Order: sequence, then C-alpha cells, then structure tokens
Amino acid sequence: MANKKNLLLLFDRPNEPIFVQKGKDAVFDLPEKFLTDRYSSIGELLQNRFGEQAERRIPVKDISIPDLRIPLSLARDAQFSLFIPAHRRIAGRLIDIFMGVHSIGDLQSVAVYARDRLNPYLFNYALSVALLHRKDTKGLNIPSIVQSFPCKFMDSRVLRQIREEVFIVPEGSRMPIIIPSDYSASDLDPEHRLWYFREDLGINLHHWHWHLVYPFEAGDRGIVNKDRRGELFYYMHEQILARYNLERFSNNLARVLRFNNLRDPIEEAYFPKMDSLVASRSWPPRFKDTKLSDLNRPVDQIQLDVSDLERWSDRIFSAIAQGFVTDESGNQVPLDEVRGIDILGNLIESSILSPNQSLYGDLHNMGHVFISYSHDPDHSYLESFGVMGDSTTSMRDPAFYRWHAYIDSIFQEHKTRLTPYSLFELNYTDVSITGVQVSSKQCKANVLQTFWQQSDVDLSRGMDFVPRGDVFARFTHLQHIPFTYTININNHGGAQRYGTVRIFLGPKRDETHKEMLFKDQRLLMVELDKFVVSLNPGQNTIRRRSSESSVTIPFEQTFRNVDKNRPGEGSPEELEFNFCGCGWPDHMLIPKGLPDGLCCELFVMVSDYDQDRIDEPSGGACKDAPSYCGLRDRRYPDRRAMGYPFDRLARSDVDNLAQFLTPNMSVVDVVVRHDKGTEKQKC
Amino acid sequence: MANKKNLLLLFDRPNEPIFVQKGKDAVFDLPEKFLTDRYSSIGELLQNRFGEQAERRIPVKDISIPDLRIPLSLARDAQFSLFIPAHRRIAGRLIDIFMGVHSIGDLQSVAVYARDRLNPYLFNYALSVALLHRKDTKGLNIPSIVQSFPCKFMDSRVLRQIREEVFIVPEGSRMPIIIPSDYSASDLDPEHRLWYFREDLGINLHHWHWHLVYPFEAGDRGIVNKDRRGELFYYMHEQILARYNLERFSNNLARVLRFNNLRDPIEEAYFPKMDSLVASRSWPPRFKDTKLSDLNRPVDQIQLDVSDLERWSDRIFSAIAQGFVTDESGNQVPLDEVRGIDILGNLIESSILSPNQSLYGDLHNMGHVFISYSHDPDHSYLESFGVMGDSTTSMRDPAFYRWHAYIDSIFQEHKTRLTPYSLFELNYTDVSITGVQVSSKQCKANVLQTFWQQSDVDLSRGMDFVPRGDVFARFTHLQHIPFTYTININNHGGAQRYGTVRIFLGPKRDETHKEMLFKDQRLLMVELDKFVVSLNPGQNTIRRRSSESSVTIPFEQTFRNVDKNRPGEGSPEELEFNFCGCGWPDHMLIPKGLPDGLCCELFVMVSDYDQDRIDEPSGGACKDAPSYCGLRDRRYPDRRAMGYPFDRLARSDVDNLAQFLTPNMSVVDVVVRHDKGTEKQKC
Repeated sequence: MANKKNLLLLFDRPNEPIFVQKGKDAVFDLPEKFLTDRYSSIGELLQNRFGEQAERRIPVKDISIPDLRIPLSLARDAQFSLFIPAHRRIAGRLIDIFMGVHSIGDLQSVAVYARDRLNPYLFNYALSVALLHRKDTKGLNIPSIVQSFPCKFMDSRVLRQIREEVFIVPEGSRMPIIIPSDYSASDLDPEHRLWYFREDLGINLHHWHWHLVYPFEAGDRGIVNKDRRGELFYYMHEQILARYNLERFSNNLARVLRFNNLRDPIEEAYFPKMDSLVASRSWPPRFKDTKLSDLNRPVDQIQLDVSDLERWSDRIFSAIAQGFVTDESGNQVPLDEVRGIDILGNLIESSILSPNQSLYGDLHNMGHVFISYSHDPDHSYLESFGVMGDSTTSMRDPAFYRWHAYIDSIFQEHKTRLTPYSLFELNYTDVSITGVQVSSKQCKANVLQTFWQQSDVDLSRGMDFVPRGDVFARFTHLQHIPFTYTININNHGGAQRYGTVRIFLGPKRDETHKEMLFKDQRLLMVELDKFVVSLNPGQNTIRRRSSESSVTIPFEQTFRNVDKNRPGEGSPEELEFNFCGCGWPDHMLIPKGLPDGLCCELFVMVSDYDQDRIDEPSGGACKDAPSYCGLRDRRYPDRRAMGYPFDRLARSDVDNLAQFLTPNMSVVDVVVRHDKGTEKQKC
Repeated sequence: MANKKNLLLLFDRPNEPIFVQKGKDAVFDLPEKFLTDRYSSIGELLQNRFGEQAERRIPVKDISIPDLRIPLSLARDAQFSLFIPAHRRIAGRLIDIFMGVHSIGDLQSVAVYARDRLNPYLFNYALSVALLHRKDTKGLNIPSIVQSFPCKFMDSRVLRQIREEVFIVPEGSRMPIIIPSDYSASDLDPEHRLWYFREDLGINLHHWHWHLVYPFEAGDRGIVNKDRRGELFYYMHEQILARYNLERFSNNLARVLRFNNLRDPIEEAYFPKMDSLVASRSWPPRFKDTKLSDLNRPVDQIQLDVSDLERWSDRIFSAIAQGFVTDESGNQVPLDEVRGIDILGNLIESSILSPNQSLYGDLHNMGHVFISYSHDPDHSYLESFGVMGDSTTSMRDPAFYRWHAYIDSIFQEHKTRLTPYSLFELNYTDVSITGVQVSSKQCKANVLQTFWQQSDVDLSRGMDFVPRGDVFARFTHLQHIPFTYTININNHGGAQRYGTVRIFLGPKRDETHKEMLFKDQRLLMVELDKFVVSLNPGQNTIRRRSSESSVTIPFEQTFRNVDKNRPGEGSPEELEFNFCGCGWPDHMLIPKGLPDGLCCELFVMVSDYDQDRIDEPSGGACKDAPSYCGLRDRRYPDRRAMGYPFDRLARSDVDNLAQFLTPNMSVVDVVVRHDKGTEKQKC
C-alpha cells in the first residue's frame, strides 16, 4: 500500500522534474509515459542517472489519469492567483480531482503525473487543500510554503547567495544566508518603517495558510462552507488592520487611510525586489502615485472597469442601509445581528458562498486584482500581477492595508447600525474583575518589551537545480519577552461558574496624542487571547502565559521543518498538527512599541461561558489558534460575535473605554517598549 | 612567464569564485591570502575540492596589490553604469590600475585578487578596456559580453531553463534553449513591432563594444582621445536613428519623436523582463507616461534637477547659435566646418574631452540617467537604474531613440548652419556613374529580401553555479539575402584615378507616403558601405558584395566563440581580430522592409580619393567596420565629414535627392521585401 507520507515529497523543489531525487534519499519510479515531452526521449538515460543514486525507490502505479485539461489551461510558467476568478475555477477543478481519487496510491499516481505538467504553484495549492481536507490524509504535515517557494518571501539576492553557498561549500561548512532587513525601501519612504510587519515571514505565511483553510471555491461545497467563514474573513482582516495601526503608532505614523476613492492615485509605491522562480520573472513594482485603470486582460478572462468596483460597492452600501441583501432568486435576506456579518463577509470577499455574485460582484478579490495590475491593465506588456495578486505576498504591500481599510469600513457600516450591546449583554452577574497585571521575569509590571531576533529557516526544499543538502536563510523579526497575565476575578455567586476571558490591547492615545474615544479605539483593539476559566466562589487568581494565546501559533509551527520539531508519529498531536499551520505568528503578538514606550490599554473581560459556549463533542482539531483561524471540522468555538465586545458601537452614554466598563471588565495601562538591539532580553 | 591567454579565463562565470574551475580544465592556484573573507577560513577545503579536478593549474604570483579602495567603493552587487559620473571615475581608476601593472604575470595577480572583490561588471569592463589598449595584450580575443553576462541580453526565463537543462541533461543530449521573440510586450503596444531591432543581440553588443573602444574616462587620456571621437559619437548615433526610422517605416510607424520637452511624460513604457545576475535584481520597468523627476541619489553622488538638463541644452544651443563654445579658460573655440562637430560631440556626449563640462554639463549621459531613474529618483526604494542606464541594454528601450532623436537634433542645429556643399565639393571632375544595380541569386534586380533566422550562442561562460559543459540559447533575428552592388563608373580622364564609393539607402517616401524632401531624407540615409576603388580610364564595372560592408562585422565576429571561428594563432589576423568586435551586425545591414515591399532609394556616389584620403602607414588595425567604429591606433580613414554628403543641407536650389545629384552620383529605386517565414531564402 502506498505510504501517504510520500505525497509530501511532491512539494520538494517544485521546478525540478519528478524523476530527480526527492527528500533525503527517495526517487519516484514512474511509468515511462509519465515523463513530459522534453524528457521522454531520454527517459532511460535520466532514470538511470537519477534513479541509481537513490536509496529508496517509490513505485508509482500506472493508472488512467483523470482529465487535466482545465488545470492544464494555466501555463506552467504563469503566475497563479486565488484572486483571479478564472484561476479560482481552475484550482477548484484540480482540488476536485485530488479529492475525488479513491486511494492514496491513485492520488500519488495522479499527482506524480500532474506535477511536471501543471503550474507548480497551482499544484502546490490544490494538493495542499486536498491533503488538508481528505479523510485519508489527515495528519500529514504539509511543508511550509516558505520552504517550497522561498522566492515569495524574501529578497531575490538571498536565492543567488544560496546558490553560491551550496555550489561552493560542502554541507557541514555552510553558513546561513542573511535576509537583509532593509532591502525593499529606505527610510526616505515613511511607509518603510513597517517593513518588519509587512514583510514578516510568519505574517505572510499566516495569510497564505488562512486562504488554504478557507478556499474560495471547490466542487465540494463543504470545503468552502465552513462555520462563520464570512464573519471570520471580516474579523481576521479587521484584526490585521488593528494590529497594523498599532504598529503605525509604534512608528509615529497615523492610522492607515482607506482607499475609498478608486480614482485617486495610490500614493504608496512598492518595489518587492523578489523573483518568482515559477515564472522566472520578478514581481512587478508599483510606482508612486499609480492609478487604477479599467482592466481588459483576455489572458486572465478579465474585462472589468473601475466603475464595476464602484457599482458593486454602491450596491453593498445600499444593502447595508436597507438591512437586507437580495439573493439570486430575488429574496430579501436580512442582515441581522447574528447572520448579517457572515453574509456580508461571503459577499464582499467573495467566495462561492456569496448570496448573489452577479449583483454584488467580487469586490475584495477584484480590488486586489485591480491594484496588482495597475502597471499593465490591458496586458500590452505581457506583465503578470504585482504582489497584491497573491495571498502569500499581498501583505507586503502598503496598498493591502489601504484596500482592506476600505473593505473594513464597509463591514463597519453594517456593524455601526446594530443596536449597541446592553449592559445586560456585557455584564456577568456576580462576577467582577478586581485586578489585572502583566509581568515578566525581566520587566517591571505592566511593561511589555520587544526587540529584534534572528531565526533560521531551511530552504533546501525550495532551491531548484542546486546540489543537495541543508541550507538556511536567516531572517530578522520582531520578538517580545514572554509575559504572564495575572487576573483576579471575584465570583460573588455561591457556585463554581465558567467564564470566557477576553483580552485585548489597544492604544491609549491617537496619533495626535489625544485620549481616544470609544468609537475610534474599538477599531484598534487587538485580540491577544481568549480562554475559558473555571471560577470558584470567592477570589480566583488566573495566570496565563502569553505563549498560550488563542491567536498565535508558536514559532516552530510557523516555520515547521517537516523532519524536526514535530510530535511523535501516530500521536494524536501529529494528527492535528497540520491545521495548526494557520495562526498569527507568536513573535508578532505584541506591536513593536516605541523606545520610550507606547502607552496602551490592556482590556480584560470575563464573560458568561454559558452564553459563549458552543456545544460540540470534545476533542478534535488543533486548538492552538482558533481566534483567527477557526477549528478544523468544527464550529467556531465562541458563540459571540467575533470581536465582541468591540464589534459594535457603545451604548449612547459611553464616550470612552472607562465608561464602557462593566464590573466583569477591567483596563490597565500597559507600556510597550522597544529595544533596538537584537536578542537583548533586558528591560 | 605567465601566458596572457589565461587572463581571458577571468571573464568566465563572473559570479563564481576565482578558485573554481575556469574554462574547460584550468584552475588558478592562488595564494591563500587572495581568498575573500567568506572563503579564507575554509581555503584548504576548497582548494582541494576544486583544485583536484583540474588538469591545468595556473600559478598566481603573490605580489603587493595596488590600492583598490576606489574600485572597491562600488558594491559588488551594485549595478554599474558608464553613464553615472561617479562610476566612470571608479572605472577610470581601475583601468589605470590594470594599464599600469608592468608584466602580464603581475596583471594576472592583480586581476585575480580583484576579481572576487570588485563588482563583476565593472571588473569585466575595466579589464576589457585594459586588454584592448595594453601593448602586451594586443590580439587577445576577449569573450563576447553576451557570453559572460547573458542576463543583459535575454528574457530571464531562458536562464532558468538553462539551469534546468544543464542540471538534468548530460552534455551531448542538451538542446538549445529558445529565446522567445515576443516576450517583452504584445502587439497592443505599437512600439513592440520594433522588438527585433531594439532587442537584437548583435545591435546591443555593438553598442557595448563601441563604448568599450571609446571609454568616457581614463587616466591615460590617449585611451579616450581617439581621432574624431566626438564626431563619431554624433555619427554612429545619427546612423542608429536613421536605421531605426527605416525600421519604423518597415512597420507602418512614423519617425520617432524627439524627447525635447523634458517635462512631458514619456509615453513609451518598457518592461525589460530581464534579470541582473550581478545584482540579483530584475531590471526595473518604466510604466507608461512616467515623468522625469529631479534626482537626488547620494548613493550615486548625483544631485541634479531636470532644470540642469534644460540649462545645459540651452547653453549648447546658444553656443551653436553663436558659432563657438567657451572653454574653461574663457576662450572662444569656434564651431567650424572641420572641428565643430567633433567638439560638439565631446561636449554633448560628454567625455573628459569636453571643452567645458562645468558650463555645458553632461547632457547625453545624464539624459540616460534621468530616464533610467524615473521610477526612483531619490532612492527611496533602493532601486537601481532601468535599462537606459547601461550601454549593453539601453537600446532595448523605446526611450533610447526618443532621447537620441533629441540629442541628434542638437547636432543638426549645428550642421544646418554650415554652408551647403558646393557643386565643386560634391563633384568628381571627369568621373560619372552610369549605372547602379543590386542583385542576388534569388531575387529580381533591385529587390532586397529579408527574413527571420535562428542562431545559437553558447552561454556556458556566463552561467554561474551550474554544472559544466556547453549550453546554447537560440535566438531569432532578422537576416537578408546577401546581395551584390554592380556600379558602372566612367572615368573620362586619361589616367587611372581612385575614388571612394559611398553607398546609402534611404526611404523614398515618408510616413504619409509623400515623396521626401532632401532636408528630411538626408536624415534617413543609412550608410551601407564605403570603399576605395581604382578607376581605369573609360568604363569601370565595380562589383561589391553586401557582406564586405565597411559598416558591419560578420555574424561570427559578433557572437564570436573564443575557442572557435578564429584566425590561426599568431597570425596577423589574430592580432587584429579583437578590435573588430565593434561593428554593426551584418544581419541588420538592411531594414526589415514590408511584405509588399518598402520603396527605398539606393544612393551611390564616387568621390575623389585625393580629397578623402588619410595618409598613414598602411597595414594596422582591423579594417572590417571602420564606418561606425574607427580604426585602432589610427585616424578615421576618411577625411570628409562623417555622413558626407548628407551631413549638411543641400544648396539652395535643391529640393529633392534627384536635384542634388552631380554626375558622380546615382540613385536607383530599390524595394525591400520581408518574408515572414524563417530561414526561407526565396524571393
């Protein structure tokens, strides 16, 4: 029987032919006719050449191959984008093919056959989605995409240096190649201050993984239609914006401006300085003050005007103003408190779950596409899209945040129309918070400290056509000193009760150093953690480590090396490990702060678990980072609206956060300090 | 004694360290301390690893190395540009160092030491100039730069495919990689019709080689100050424009417009789709309608405003209007018929020969720089220059021709002020042309035929960090059926005389299909050939093959393979072979024409050799293509103004070419037909 783990070898060195050694020691032993045209005439020569070196030969069954014409319609050296509808359909078809094959052995044959014929990035995406969602491949630990496609994550110079290192220096004497921190712009560009956020490997991996867990399209609607998927689209991106704005405050920049006039030039330039190894092209830049243009690109089956985007957004605003959307049958679907945001999420994103794509269009995706094609809107110059066109790269671009600030403002248009939470909806009778503190070994109480750290990632899986052996890239990222929340909760009732502790961090003052109003601050509240506690009658002292956050995944999980750092084979953890690739990177939990300290407010609430709980059988999927990613095969583990209690405006007598508080909430001033050194952990 | 030929190995695989095998079988055996920092700690390991394979070890003397600080000031992974003054100074210094070393052995030591420390392109340029100009390295056959830096000449995809081919397929079974013809734009861009001219390997090699023969700057002024260098700058570029315009007529496009308002957006976009392997960056594109901006790039030591360019050109126009330039001492230097154009050439280009750079600036070079930095004028985005910034790549860009059309119009402002040639200056007493015909085996008389041809170029010298062995790229270029001029000349005098035959081709009609006026047509006259004939009394029939042109070099010379296609060792031809790398590529002698035929006029003149001749000892440098390149160590081999008789306006009674003719001239209608097929040679 075929070993499902061999499927993972198909992710190795995506541009190298299938018959070349994969992993440390394996070669696929494939039927002659599986060879592509270039190699079929010299098949014997090649199979001898590469087969002989291998310790392990993996037999590949010769089966009848399903019809691959649709996936083959994307050129092998094209750039593949989930934002382009034609590509989504192609990917959807390929996912169906991989999902539809009955056995692991047959899946291996189909995938082996398809691999050298299809676009490598499309192949990686569709096979990843299939392995994540097939029952018989659960627990397979898909290699991080940064390993297979390092070119999407780093300065193109690194790849050249790696080529030199592995060609010249034997394994054992190799040194990691440094990914420079300041390669995409200089300090003359104020936006460049945010490089560590926009270009962070972990953040971009999170974004990619999120879209892997939540595909836009598949023949099996269940893969797309996950619980509260639309709402999570809204919330995850809203949180990215809140985090981004906190980083802006950490760099003396004002909140990001919405890109709400599509006729305006986009002030922010971006020069990615990255190559696509699949397309053998660099990622096109966007110059300062580039404008959107009407798109007419037959190659992408796109003919859309800027006016189309404007019409879609006008219709969405109208729907929100009227309180309902109109589905394809003409029925009114109310945008109510419970389902409204989820419907809007599906409709704005949009996925195949949109209630009426022909009326409301494909706003969010197409915004990405318009921005990514602003340099070549009619394909005159045979250019592919810029970084905004790919979910692994779009967060590098300052325009991402301007576009999502606009998208978020549409969601907020809905949210601000909802009735503010009443005291009853906020309070937890007889439960009050009496004290909150964050502390760490090195810092004073209520001081958080960030610094720079360097970490290595093994890229040997992604470097095509170079000698074998490990080779590492070393990148610089933000890090913080781990800390602990200590929360004192008084249960005035007589019985044990359960509460959901919700922890948010927000800025105390705005960019003009004024204290913030609730209506503004609520949009900047970053979720740090959410967890269930048992409350005994009387005083309870809750201690929670920052590394336990429901938002984040640990470093090793973000940059997982398939061969290391993983749970033991066959253990339940192994089975679930995979889904946990989705999650905000732990090293970015806390904004950078300022050298003299960024004044923040840490908000803690304990809500009534009876009102929050989702009744599902226990156990199940990875529970590591459900806040932004949900749980595999399960409902979202919190019945409240995502972002509660900050997702709505406050009741009318509340101007600021202090006034918003009910006894089961507490706020404490926290200072986030940044130490410019690297690896220093002193406070 | 060191073998000077080993110096040529230093051009191999410019990014691979010096201790790796070079050429087919050689390794430099260098002093330990020559290793760079990265490799010095594992020197023994590496020297064993790479040295053991080599059949031939080349000893490298440990000598005291000259001060390399100035050349080292250019980063190894920077882009190097001859148009940037600071880079010219750096290159000038390095040329001096290479020229100043006394023996071949010492030069080898200095070059070996410098190679892995300096910018590889700077190194290639300065070493090439030195080898071309040192007495003891004459006759060394420098590898074509397309072999060392293929990335400057072709689609980046080709390089990836080559990597795959050499990694996967053993030598012997390798196939040439096809350079696509239509990769930089689509037919939606009308300018793209000229791809075969702008992106031709031979044309770009010519341009590079021209600037190698005519450096802007060197400590040894003699290297720069070649006979009529300034005039040749004017004339060679004027001819490029005339040829470009004939190609435009061959593609139903109007003549190129001058870029004479520097505040206008540049309508023409260009997306090079090439990588720089030195910088590990792609060549930045220029979007449609990009404007020039004031430059402030400390990294390049450039702080200049668009107004500076405008002021320089105003001053140059004033000088022309007044008939003199003012030198640095305040003296007036007349712009007369003999020296004026040469002075203007030096001043506009400009080189260190400019009579007053502080007054007249650096117009032509800086125009290249402004255009090449229009995407990042203040280095905010850490971008290097676009293709306009490098002489090997600038001719790919439509903006090159717009800029040079403007530059040429300044030269013409001077030329139109000169007294038209008198009949006396044009005529050749007692000599008349009685017949002109062009013919070929396949075509009717006076029909020229072009078609597409594919040729291969070996890139193994330029592919760093891949396995050894030949690997070819196959490119498509224009070609024409070779033809013969038959010219009947009547010498009415009683004695043998000598004449210079001057052959030009020009369009018969303009872009609106009107017959051309002399004043316009003269600017479109393309020199096809110029040669001296002996005229016996009575009728003379001159036959001359197109391949003998004084403008062109044969295909093998453009794409010379150092190991093949070369004269025997030690032969006089070998000694001179080198300089002959400069020359218009033979395959581009004739414009493409139109499928139904482009109507042209072939102009033939025989002038009095006594008025033309330059008295110099016979023999000497390569005589292959002096018209655009001059002759090594000699004066330009024609005393007349370059472009004569079309370099001035015609006498007042002449409106068209027919009226311009004197008996020693003749014009015949010629049709240039284009066959869309490849390699078909039928008419």
